Amino acid sequence: MKHIVALSGGMDSATLLGKLFSESSTQEIHCCLFDYGSKHAKWEMQAAKELIQYYNQVPGPVVITHQFDLSAVMSLFKSALLQTGGPIPEGNYEDENMKQTVVPGRNLIFISIMAGLAESLNIETISLGVHSGDHHIYPDCRPEFIYATRWALHHSSDKRVHLATPFLFFDKAKILELGYKYNPIVPYQLTRTCYKDQELSCGKCGSCRERLEAFATICCYDPIQYEV
Amino acid sequence: MKHIVALSGGMDSATLLGKLFSESSTQEIHCCLFDYGSKHAKWEMQAAKELIQYYNQVPGPVVITHQFDLSAVMSLFKSALLQTGGPIPEGNYEDENMKQTVVPGRNLIFISIMAGLAESLNIETISLGVHSGDHHIYPDCRPEFIYATRWALHHSSDKRVHLATPFLFFDKAKILELGYKYNPIVPYQLTRTCYKDQELSCGKCGSCRERLEAFATICCYDPIQYEV
Repeated sequence: MKHIVALSGGMDSATLLGKLFSESSTQEIHCCLFDYGSKHAKWEMQAAKELIQYYNQVPGPVVITHQFDLSAVMSLFKSALLQTGGPIPEGNYEDENMKQTVVPGRNLIFISIMAGLAESLNIETISLGVHSGDHHIYPDCRPEFIYATRWALHHSSDKRVHLATPFLFFDKAKILELGYKYNPIVPYQLTRTCYKDQELSCGKCGSCRERLEAFATICCYDPIQYEV
Repeated sequence: MKHIVALSGGMDSATLLGKLFSESSTQEIHCCLFDYGSKHAKWEMQAAKELIQYYNQVPGPVVITHQFDLSAVMSLFKSALLQTGGPIPEGNYEDENMKQTVVPGRNLIFISIMAGLAESLNIETISLGVHSGDHHIYPDCRPEFIYATRWALHHSSDKRVHLATPFLFFDKAKILELGYKYNPIVPYQLTRTCYKDQELSCGKCGSCRERLEAFATICCYDPIQYEV
């Protein structure tokens, strides 16, 4: 089977890539890297590319890179996550101020491009690493959005493209647990979760905190370096 | 009210622009022009820009242009409509070979970008000129796709963005009839429907034929020039 997956370079999408890579039926994985003008785009892209490089050195399916520059297309969009937006809020992931990091329409834009690519390349399934930790803050990660979008794709593609979200009801700790069971283990040392534009992850933004909590929950050290 | 509309430069979206422009509640219309790498992109863009210029010279709402270059993003997409695809089929619009002109995921990509822009600019409604003449060939113009996508947007935007498709069950003749009733009348002489990359519309591709039939149905001359 061939798959298309959105790869942000974060731990969720890295685990999704690891899941597909470890499945015996997978022959080819097309990774979509989207630069949507975020502050952390450079570090995300670097992490995503290092993950692809890693998997391509391990015997298994071929992993292919598709890079999409949406920074001009989304230049009028409003979000603290974008280069044009205000500062990245610090605090817990569930805090109200984290809603400033919502990027309007982001997942639907990614999904629609992946779906068009899937149909063009005769690939049946596109996959997204959305999970339950995102439900509170991000409307485009919630089950009701995923279900409606799945139908939209079903109709848009004349039943040819399916949207898979295997982690939809898992939290980040559960995702990590899975990632450590795959063969090969997901190389979390290569992933990048921080929302800030700096080499070392800050450890203070909502995104870093949620990641650190997930590692703490499964009693593992996070293998990446933090500023604090 | 403020509106966001997809403007291809064709007669359907021009009529949609004319409809919104003629409504007394409209203050601002944001027109989205998408270059997705089609053979006729240059002529579409020219027509769309001339339409916007026309409406901005008439007293009424402000009409704003947003141009999106998706040609690189959609460069691997497969369709006879694209510069990378085979020749444009000739014949009736309902013919099986017209399915070669389907661009996978096109409307969902446009809608998702418009929805993100709408949320960012605090605009409630995005409008698309899809109509019943497109249902047979284009899956992403059919009612079932529009309904599912409407829900996807509803959830994606936390109930902030609505997808309007006022011509969904109208054919092109009915659309023309409406366009001739608006004040000002829709300037069909500025619109462009042909799928081919040539200055004069060919009059032979499915798109030209469908347009000519619509004008014939309402007993009007089409004011644009044709090659044949």
